[in-house]
Amino acid sequence: MSNATNSIKKGTNYTTYNPGSLTKWKDYDVEFPGLKIEGKHFLKEFLGFTGCEISIDSMAPGVGMPFYHKHTMNEEAYIFLKGNGQMQVDGEVIDVSEGSIVRIAPNGERTWRNNSNEPLIFIVIQMQENSLTQHTLDDGVVIEKEVSWPGK
Amino acid sequence: MSNATNSIKKGTNYTTYNPGSLTKWKDYDVEFPGLKIEGKHFLKEFLGFTGCEISIDSMAPGVGMPFYHKHTMNEEAYIFLKGNGQMQVDGEVIDVSEGSIVRIAPNGERTWRNNSNEPLIFIVIQMQENSLTQHTLDDGVVIEKEVSWPGK
Repeated sequence: MSNATNSIKKGTNYTTYNPGSLTKWKDYDVEFPGLKIEGKHFLKEFLGFTGCEISIDSMAPGVGMPFYHKHTMNEEAYIFLKGNGQMQVDGEVIDVSEGSIVRIAPNGERTWRNNSNEPLIFIVIQMQENSLTQHTLDDGVVIEKEVSWPGK
Repeated sequence: MSNATNSIKKGTNYTTYNPGSLTKWKDYDVEFPGLKIEGKHFLKEFLGFTGCEISIDSMAPGVGMPFYHKHTMNEEAYIFLKGNGQMQVDGEVIDVSEGSIVRIAPNGERTWRNNSNEPLIFIVIQMQENSLTQHTLDDGVVIEKEVSWPGK
Protein backbone atom coordinates (compact mmCIF):
# COMPACT_ATOMS: atom_id res chain seq x y z
CA MET A 1 0.00 0.00 0.00
CA SER A 2 1.40 3.38 -0.87
CA ASN A 3 1.86 5.55 2.15
CA ALA A 4 -0.64 8.37 2.19
CA THR A 5 1.87 11.09 2.94
CA ASN A 6 -0.64 13.67 1.76
CA SER A 7 -2.68 12.92 4.88
CA ILE A 8 0.08 14.48 6.99
CA LYS A 9 -0.68 17.88 8.52
CA LYS A 10 1.84 19.92 10.49
CA GLY A 11 1.58 22.84 12.88
CA THR A 12 4.23 24.61 14.92
CA ASN A 13 4.08 22.06 17.72
CA TYR A 14 2.29 19.08 16.21
CA THR A 15 2.13 16.63 13.33
CA THR A 16 -0.89 14.46 12.54
CA TYR A 17 -1.19 11.50 10.20
CA ASN A 18 -3.89 8.90 9.61
CA PRO A 19 -2.65 5.68 7.98
CA GLY A 20 -6.19 4.24 8.11
CA SER A 21 -8.43 2.25 10.42
CA LEU A 22 -7.16 -0.88 12.19
CA THR A 23 -8.40 -3.23 9.45
CA LYS A 24 -6.22 -1.36 6.93
CA TRP A 25 -2.96 -1.88 8.83
CA LYS A 26 -2.50 -5.29 7.15
CA ASP A 27 -1.94 -3.50 3.82
CA TYR A 28 1.39 -1.92 4.86
CA ASP A 29 4.74 -3.64 4.78
CA VAL A 30 8.35 -3.04 5.76
CA GLU A 31 11.36 -4.19 3.76
CA PHE A 32 14.54 -4.99 5.63
CA PRO A 33 17.58 -6.45 3.83
CA GLY A 34 16.56 -10.04 3.00
CA LEU A 35 13.20 -9.78 4.75
CA LYS A 36 9.82 -8.30 3.97
CA ILE A 37 7.42 -8.00 6.92
CA GLU A 38 3.77 -7.80 5.85
CA GLY A 39 1.38 -5.74 7.97
CA LYS A 40 3.92 -3.48 9.67
CA HIS A 41 4.13 0.30 9.27
CA PHE A 42 6.71 2.48 11.03
CA LEU A 43 5.47 5.95 11.95
CA LYS A 44 8.58 7.95 12.96
CA GLU A 45 9.35 9.25 9.47
CA PHE A 46 5.78 10.47 8.99
CA LEU A 47 5.25 12.04 12.40
CA GLY A 48 8.76 13.15 13.31
CA PHE A 49 9.00 11.52 16.73
CA THR A 50 12.24 12.36 18.54
CA GLY A 51 11.77 10.18 21.62
CA CYS A 52 10.46 6.93 20.17
CA GLU A 53 9.74 4.85 17.11
CA ILE A 54 6.23 3.41 16.84
CA SER A 55 4.90 0.78 14.45
CA ILE A 56 1.30 -0.24 13.84
CA ASP A 57 0.96 -3.93 13.07
CA SER A 58 -1.53 -6.47 11.71
CA MET A 59 -0.16 -10.00 11.56
CA ALA A 60 -2.11 -12.51 9.46
CA PRO A 61 -3.47 -15.77 10.94
CA GLY A 62 -0.84 -18.51 11.15
CA VAL A 63 2.10 -16.13 10.67
CA GLY A 64 4.99 -15.68 13.08
CA MET A 65 8.17 -13.61 13.12
CA PRO A 66 10.85 -15.86 11.59
CA PHE A 67 13.61 -14.78 13.99
CA TYR A 68 14.36 -13.77 17.57
CA HIS A 69 15.71 -10.31 18.21
CA LYS A 70 16.90 -8.19 21.10
CA HIS A 71 17.86 -4.53 21.40
CA THR A 72 20.98 -2.61 22.33
CA MET A 73 19.59 0.50 24.02
CA ASN A 74 15.84 0.40 23.56
CA GLU A 75 13.00 -0.83 25.75
CA GLU A 76 9.89 -1.96 23.86
CA ALA A 77 6.15 -1.91 24.60
CA TYR A 78 3.71 -4.16 22.71
CA ILE A 79 0.04 -3.21 23.04
CA PHE A 80 -2.41 -5.78 21.63
CA LEU A 81 -5.68 -4.38 20.27
CA LYS A 82 -7.43 -7.28 18.55
CA GLY A 83 -7.02 -11.01 18.03
CA ASN A 84 -5.05 -13.66 19.89
CA GLY A 85 -1.42 -14.69 19.72
CA GLN A 86 1.71 -15.48 21.66
CA MET A 87 4.92 -13.70 22.51
CA GLN A 88 8.07 -15.52 23.53
CA VAL A 89 10.71 -13.80 25.69
CA ASP A 90 13.85 -15.68 26.76
CA GLY A 91 12.04 -18.96 26.03
CA GLU A 92 8.95 -18.09 28.12
CA VAL A 93 5.63 -18.10 26.26
CA ILE A 94 3.09 -15.33 26.98
CA ASP A 95 -0.46 -15.63 25.63
CA VAL A 96 -1.71 -12.27 24.40
CA SER A 97 -5.17 -11.00 23.51
CA GLU A 98 -7.05 -7.70 23.30
CA GLY A 99 -5.70 -5.40 26.02
CA SER A 100 -2.46 -7.32 26.71
CA ILE A 101 0.56 -5.09 27.16
CA VAL A 102 4.11 -6.43 27.27
CA ARG A 103 7.19 -4.42 28.28
CA ILE A 104 10.50 -5.94 27.18
CA ALA A 105 13.95 -4.82 28.40
CA PRO A 106 16.62 -4.43 25.70
CA ASN A 107 18.26 -7.78 26.44
CA GLY A 108 15.11 -9.92 26.17
CA GLU A 109 15.23 -12.35 23.23
CA ARG A 110 11.80 -11.98 21.69
CA THR A 111 9.59 -13.30 18.92
CA TRP A 112 5.82 -13.52 18.42
CA ARG A 113 3.19 -15.29 16.37
CA ASN A 114 -0.48 -15.24 15.47
CA ASN A 115 -1.72 -18.74 16.28
CA SER A 116 -5.38 -17.80 15.77
CA ASN A 117 -7.80 -17.51 12.87
CA GLU A 118 -8.10 -13.73 12.72
CA PRO A 119 -5.60 -10.86 12.36
CA LEU A 120 -3.48 -10.02 15.39
CA ILE A 121 -3.49 -6.22 15.59
CA PHE A 122 -1.02 -4.42 17.83
CA ILE A 123 1.25 -1.41 18.34
CA VAL A 124 4.99 -1.57 19.10
CA ILE A 125 6.78 1.37 20.72
CA GLN A 126 10.55 1.55 21.21
CA MET A 127 12.24 4.18 23.36
CA GLN A 128 15.62 4.40 25.02
CA GLU A 129 15.79 2.52 28.33
CA ASN A 130 16.01 4.83 31.36
CA SER A 131 15.48 7.92 29.20
CA LEU A 132 12.40 9.26 31.00
CA THR A 133 13.35 11.91 33.58
CA GLN A 134 9.90 13.00 34.73
CA HIS A 135 6.28 12.47 33.66
CA THR A 136 2.61 13.32 34.21
CA LEU A 137 2.23 15.92 37.00
CA ASP A 138 5.99 16.50 37.21
CA ASP A 139 6.33 17.25 33.52
CA GLY A 140 2.90 18.62 32.62
CA VAL A 141 1.95 22.27 33.06
CA VAL A 142 -1.71 23.30 33.20
CA ILE A 143 -2.44 26.48 31.23
CA GLU A 144 -4.59 29.00 33.10
CA LYS A 145 -7.04 29.67 30.27
CA GLU A 146 -10.62 28.60 29.76
CA VAL A 147 -11.08 25.92 27.12
CA SER A 148 -12.94 27.07 24.00
CA TRP A 149 -13.50 25.39 20.63
CA PRO A 150 -13.20 27.92 17.83
CA GLY A 151 -15.92 27.94 15.22
CA LYS A 152 -17.56 24.71 16.27
CA MET B 1 -12.45 -0.26 38.86
CA SER B 2 -9.85 -1.88 41.05
CA ASN B 3 -6.64 -2.42 39.23
CA ALA B 4 -6.08 -6.10 38.53
CA THR B 5 -2.51 -6.15 39.77
CA ASN B 6 -2.71 -9.92 40.06
CA SER B 7 -2.77 -10.10 36.26
CA ILE B 8 0.84 -8.85 36.20
CA LYS B 9 3.48 -11.42 35.27
CA LYS B 10 7.20 -10.73 35.33
CA GLY B 11 10.22 -12.45 33.83
CA THR B 12 13.87 -11.47 33.84
CA ASN B 13 13.46 -9.17 30.85
CA TYR B 14 9.73 -8.59 30.59
CA THR B 15 6.55 -7.60 32.40
CA THR B 16 3.06 -8.28 31.06
CA TYR B 17 -0.27 -6.91 32.24
CA ASN B 18 -3.77 -7.03 30.82
CA PRO B 19 -6.10 -4.27 32.09
CA GLY B 20 -8.93 -5.63 29.91
CA SER B 21 -10.33 -5.23 26.42
CA LEU B 22 -10.87 -1.77 24.89
CA THR B 23 -14.51 -1.57 26.05
CA LYS B 24 -13.31 -1.94 29.68
CA TRP B 25 -10.95 1.03 29.58
CA LYS B 26 -13.85 3.38 30.48
CA ASP B 27 -13.99 1.78 33.94
CA TYR B 28 -10.60 3.14 35.07
CA ASP B 29 -9.97 6.59 36.44
CA VAL B 30 -7.11 8.81 37.55
CA GLU B 31 -7.25 11.22 40.47
CA PHE B 32 -5.13 14.34 40.33
CA PRO B 33 -5.36 17.04 43.04
CA GLY B 34 -8.73 18.68 42.42
CA LEU B 35 -9.52 16.62 39.35
CA LYS B 36 -10.75 13.11 38.63
CA ILE B 37 -10.40 11.93 35.03
CA GLU B 38 -12.76 9.10 34.15
CA GLY B 39 -11.62 6.49 31.62
CA LYS B 40 -7.86 6.99 31.95
CA HIS B 41 -5.41 4.39 33.22
CA PHE B 42 -1.64 4.97 33.50
CA LEU B 43 0.48 1.88 32.88
CA LYS B 44 4.01 2.79 34.02
CA GLU B 45 3.59 1.64 37.61
CA PHE B 46 2.23 -1.74 36.49
CA LEU B 47 4.70 -2.45 33.71
CA GLY B 48 7.81 -0.67 34.95
CA PHE B 49 8.54 1.39 31.84
CA THR B 50 11.78 3.39 32.12
CA GLY B 51 11.59 5.27 28.82
CA CYS B 52 7.96 6.36 28.68
CA GLU B 53 4.62 6.68 30.44
CA ILE B 54 1.62 5.26 28.60
CA SER B 55 -2.07 5.69 29.36
CA ILE B 56 -5.03 3.84 27.87
CA ASP B 57 -8.09 6.04 27.53
CA SER B 58 -11.81 5.86 26.89
CA MET B 59 -13.55 9.23 26.92
CA ALA B 60 -17.34 9.22 27.16
CA PRO B 61 -19.55 10.94 24.53
CA GLY B 62 -19.85 14.68 25.07
CA VAL B 63 -16.89 14.88 27.45
CA GLY B 64 -13.80 17.05 26.97
CA MET B 65 -10.65 17.73 28.98
CA PRO B 66 -11.50 20.80 31.10
CA PHE B 67 -8.07 22.44 30.70
CA TYR B 68 -5.19 23.00 28.30
CA HIS B 69 -1.78 21.63 29.20
CA LYS B 70 1.73 21.55 27.82
CA HIS B 71 4.87 19.70 28.85
CA THR B 72 8.31 20.65 30.05
CA MET B 73 10.51 17.89 28.60
CA ASN B 74 8.17 15.33 27.09
CA GLU B 75 6.88 14.76 23.57
CA GLU B 76 3.49 13.04 23.37
CA ALA B 77 1.87 10.64 20.89
CA TYR B 78 -1.91 10.18 20.76
CA ILE B 79 -3.12 7.09 18.88
CA PHE B 80 -6.88 6.95 18.27
CA LEU B 81 -8.40 3.45 18.09
CA LYS B 82 -12.16 3.95 18.03
CA GLY B 83 -14.71 6.74 17.84
CA ASN B 84 -14.48 10.34 16.69
CA GLY B 85 -13.30 13.47 18.42
CA GLN B 86 -11.16 16.57 18.18
CA MET B 87 -7.79 17.68 19.46
CA GLN B 88 -6.80 21.29 19.77
CA VAL B 89 -3.14 22.35 19.67
CA ASP B 90 -2.16 26.03 19.93
CA GLY B 91 -5.71 26.95 18.90
CA GLU B 92 -5.77 24.71 15.79
CA VAL B 93 -8.51 22.06 15.70
CA ILE B 94 -7.66 18.55 14.45
CA ASP B 95 -10.47 16.08 13.74
CA VAL B 96 -9.49 12.59 14.88
CA SER B 97 -10.97 9.17 14.17
CA GLU B 98 -9.88 5.53 14.14
CA GLY B 99 -6.22 5.41 13.04
CA SER B 100 -5.42 9.09 13.64
CA ILE B 101 -2.04 9.67 15.26
CA VAL B 102 -0.96 13.04 16.65
CA ARG B 103 2.57 13.93 17.79
CA ILE B 104 2.80 16.99 20.02
CA ALA B 105 6.03 18.78 20.97
CA PRO B 106 6.41 19.73 24.65
CA ASN B 107 5.41 23.36 24.11
CA GLY B 108 2.12 22.68 22.30
CA GLU B 109 -0.92 23.83 24.29
CA ARG B 110 -3.31 20.92 23.95
CA THR B 111 -6.78 19.75 24.88
CA TRP B 112 -9.23 17.26 23.37
CA ARG B 113 -12.89 16.29 23.40
CA ASN B 114 -15.28 13.58 22.33
CA ASN B 115 -17.93 15.37 20.28
CA SER B 116 -19.53 12.13 19.07
CA ASN B 117 -22.11 9.65 20.37
CA GLU B 118 -19.78 6.75 21.17
CA PRO B 119 -16.68 6.35 23.34
CA LEU B 120 -13.44 7.85 22.04
CA ILE B 121 -10.78 5.20 22.69
CA PHE B 122 -7.10 6.08 22.44
CA ILE B 123 -3.58 5.62 23.80
CA VAL B 124 -1.29 8.42 25.00
CA ILE B 125 2.48 7.92 25.18
CA GLN B 126 4.89 10.45 26.68
CA MET B 127 8.66 10.21 26.30
CA GLN B 128 11.49 12.70 26.64
CA GLU B 129 11.96 14.85 23.55
CA ASN B 130 15.15 14.03 21.62
CA SER B 131 15.87 11.02 23.83
CA LEU B 132 15.98 8.40 21.07
CA THR B 133 19.57 7.73 19.97
CA GLN B 134 19.01 4.88 17.53
CA HIS B 135 16.16 2.59 16.49
CA THR B 136 15.01 -0.38 14.39
CA LEU B 137 17.94 -1.86 12.44
CA ASP B 138 20.49 0.31 14.25
CA ASP B 139 19.35 -0.79 17.68
CA GLY B 140 17.96 -4.27 17.02
CA VAL B 141 20.13 -7.39 16.98
CA VAL B 142 18.90 -10.56 15.27
CA ILE B 143 19.65 -13.73 17.24
CA GLU B 144 21.10 -16.56 15.13
CA LYS B 145 18.83 -19.29 16.45
CA GLU B 146 15.89 -21.07 14.83
CA VAL B 147 12.52 -20.06 16.25
CA SER B 148 10.74 -22.81 18.18
CA TRP B 149 7.64 -22.73 20.35
CA PRO B 150 8.10 -24.95 23.43
CA GLY B 151 5.35 -27.42 24.22
CA LYS B 152 2.84 -26.08 21.74
